[in-house]
Amino acid sequence: MPEISKRGSLMPNSPIRKLVPLAEKSIERGNTVYRLNIGQPDISTSDKALEAIKNLDVRVIDYGHSAGNESLRRKFAAYYKSIGIDVDYSNILVTTGASEAITITLLTCLNAGDEIIVPEPFYANYFSFATATDAVVVPVTSHIEDGFALPPISEFEKKITKRTKAIIICNPNNPTGYIYSRKELEQLRDLVKKYNLFLFSDEVYRELCYDGQEFTSMMKMEGIENNVVLIDSVSKRYSATGLRVGAMVSKNKELLSTALKFCQARLSPPYLGQLAAEAALDSTKEYLSGLYNDFLERRNYIINELNNIPGVFCPMPKGAFYCMAKLPVDDAEKFAMWMLEEFEYKKQTVMLAPGAGFYYNTDLGRQEVRIAYVLNLNDLHNAMECLRRGLEAYPGKADIIRTKKEFITSEL
Amino acid sequence: MPEISKRGSLMPNSPIRKLVPLAEKSIERGNTVYRLNIGQPDISTSDKALEAIKNLDVRVIDYGHSAGNESLRRKFAAYYKSIGIDVDYSNILVTTGASEAITITLLTCLNAGDEIIVPEPFYANYFSFATATDAVVVPVTSHIEDGFALPPISEFEKKITKRTKAIIICNPNNPTGYIYSRKELEQLRDLVKKYNLFLFSDEVYRELCYDGQEFTSMMKMEGIENNVVLIDSVSKRYSATGLRVGAMVSKNKELLSTALKFCQARLSPPYLGQLAAEAALDSTKEYLSGLYNDFLERRNYIINELNNIPGVFCPMPKGAFYCMAKLPVDDAEKFAMWMLEEFEYKKQTVMLAPGAGFYYNTDLGRQEVRIAYVLNLNDLHNAMECLRRGLEAYPGKADIIRTKKEFITSEL
Repeated sequence: MPEISKRGSLMPNSPIRKLVPLAEKSIERGNTVYRLNIGQPDISTSDKALEAIKNLDVRVIDYGHSAGNESLRRKFAAYYKSIGIDVDYSNILVTTGASEAITITLLTCLNAGDEIIVPEPFYANYFSFATATDAVVVPVTSHIEDGFALPPISEFEKKITKRTKAIIICNPNNPTGYIYSRKELEQLRDLVKKYNLFLFSDEVYRELCYDGQEFTSMMKMEGIENNVVLIDSVSKRYSATGLRVGAMVSKNKELLSTALKFCQARLSPPYLGQLAAEAALDSTKEYLSGLYNDFLERRNYIINELNNIPGVFCPMPKGAFYCMAKLPVDDAEKFAMWMLEEFEYKKQTVMLAPGAGFYYNTDLGRQEVRIAYVLNLNDLHNAMECLRRGLEAYPGKADIIRTKKEFITSEL
Repeated sequence: MPEISKRGSLMPNSPIRKLVPLAEKSIERGNTVYRLNIGQPDISTSDKALEAIKNLDVRVIDYGHSAGNESLRRKFAAYYKSIGIDVDYSNILVTTGASEAITITLLTCLNAGDEIIVPEPFYANYFSFATATDAVVVPVTSHIEDGFALPPISEFEKKITKRTKAIIICNPNNPTGYIYSRKELEQLRDLVKKYNLFLFSDEVYRELCYDGQEFTSMMKMEGIENNVVLIDSVSKRYSATGLRVGAMVSKNKELLSTALKFCQARLSPPYLGQLAAEAALDSTKEYLSGLYNDFLERRNYIINELNNIPGVFCPMPKGAFYCMAKLPVDDAEKFAMWMLEEFEYKKQTVMLAPGAGFYYNTDLGRQEVRIAYVLNLNDLHNAMECLRRGLEAYPGKADIIRTKKEFITSEL
């Protein structure tokens, strides 16, 4: 048979998804598996979206515009205006989830071999999208001991080469929950300006900022209007991940008209998802604040619980619904597999996303896991009980290995 | 501002979509535009699909499996078995339309710079997907005078180089309506075997075969089980293009497990589309035969009408719902633009897909257009009236320029 492509071989298994077969087997054995591996909240989808679907009143589910339905684009624009981002519908392309928005953005802006700088740990699929589009990921490491703050801008500058074309950030951050400060974003702005780079800003968790932390959109930064692409999705805001509706937003019209050619090739975003997303944008304040409060409560609960488990360390995330926790194990992936293959407590276990997949330098994440606090408090309680007992029973226990930085810090 | 990527610049505008802004302006001027440019039938979506959507009974629209819902994959498998294709659900990945199936197939099987042979004219977006994935399209020309039959297999063989990795065919063919005979497919099979190539077979129009023509799936060819990827979609079979649900099907498990990594990166296909597609697969025989008969009637009508317009030549398509017609104009794209910008007859006009975009050698399609006979007979009647009068009034009239092959044939 002919050979699979090199990029196919290089393509990573998603750390979020790769353990799914093991989870399925655990379920087959009669266990309940608490899925903390994936950003799939158990919160009801916006009722506006559900109603719109049930009230479908058309005869033909047809393609629609490659840029997305104009009515949806106008509604997105009104939403952005309401949060101080000054765009109109012509600045917006509707995509099949943020996933497609990122892929098309990479295809539009980077040639094969061009480099994109990403603070790590990063949303694992950034690496996948880069691999699929032959872009080169260049990591700048943020550290758990700093709560995953933006690394010093000098670290970014050191990584800039002739092939550097873009920086991508996720703010509030998946997987760390860190929210970049205005000062950090201004430093990025200046860097982007100085080296004439693109800046892709994935802001899908913008509504989930806790403890009074202020969120600043990269779209508001002056002087880099043509450099910035905002990546967005309705998945998390309205608890409707399966709609597969996202957006890429930019003031750079040449960039958008090029991106539209990629949109044309795949014809159109999903009709039903767009219908539901347009309705979801009218979600009530009650719905949105209910969702916010649920996540806040879950965060407060789980971070406390995690840090109470002997040997576990987890900085307090300020946004989104993830945290990166360091576990006292030899290898977090082995541990995550063991939890699914070998462990159960009262017919329950937990599915975690191994941290290594969120790092370019996979060794850095060897003791870390990403946890999505997307389940109700009762489930989270049971999940934490499983995690605690799992860590007790796991044969590959180890102290938390301090990172180089941590080591240096303690040496000084 | 930073520069757009080369692949972004090289990416073609879809010939099917590029005239949309002109059509929108014509509509703004009060005209009715008959859209024969795009495969968007006016036939009702399968009532099973519509009912399933309206009866949605879940609280959360969630991601779901990256490979697609198992229940849908099993239903696809049962459908394939019913038409003699021996696969089970593990041979099937659900994709966001056939578009994504093709993109992921290319990413899985071809390295940047690898060549893929395509009989031209071809579905225009094959070229777009190849451009997006840095694959190189190598055309083998089929000819309108032959009714777009498969070019002699020796023509394919001539194009094979060290970089040739795959052949892609569309059968029944979009844009030509040609159905490859068993003998032609066996020749392709032997070639694929001889040179150890992949064979991607886009069979989304398989149910639309007219005049007793038999359709043969490439999945049934023995000895190349690991070479073949079937590309499929529910869009056309159930008149539900907006669902964005397709499939890639193969007996090559290594290929599928690699493709799954690309699927994982984009998380999952659309939830609502999958729900509707699963129901659509239970469409009644009455629905399916009604759809078939509508297209048959439309084909018979429009091909006759086209050939009755002075100077127009259109071979009889045997399948799908497209035809390539040669028009007595200097440049079919200019003509198509003129029809939208300058022409109207009783406040009506027609939108056509310029033929050049379906050829690698764009000159070959300069006098051709692709016409999708996707509208009801009344609309088609009005559209043909517009086309006839448009051709009369168009200032750039020209005789049909004979192709080299045609010229040689008439010389002999």
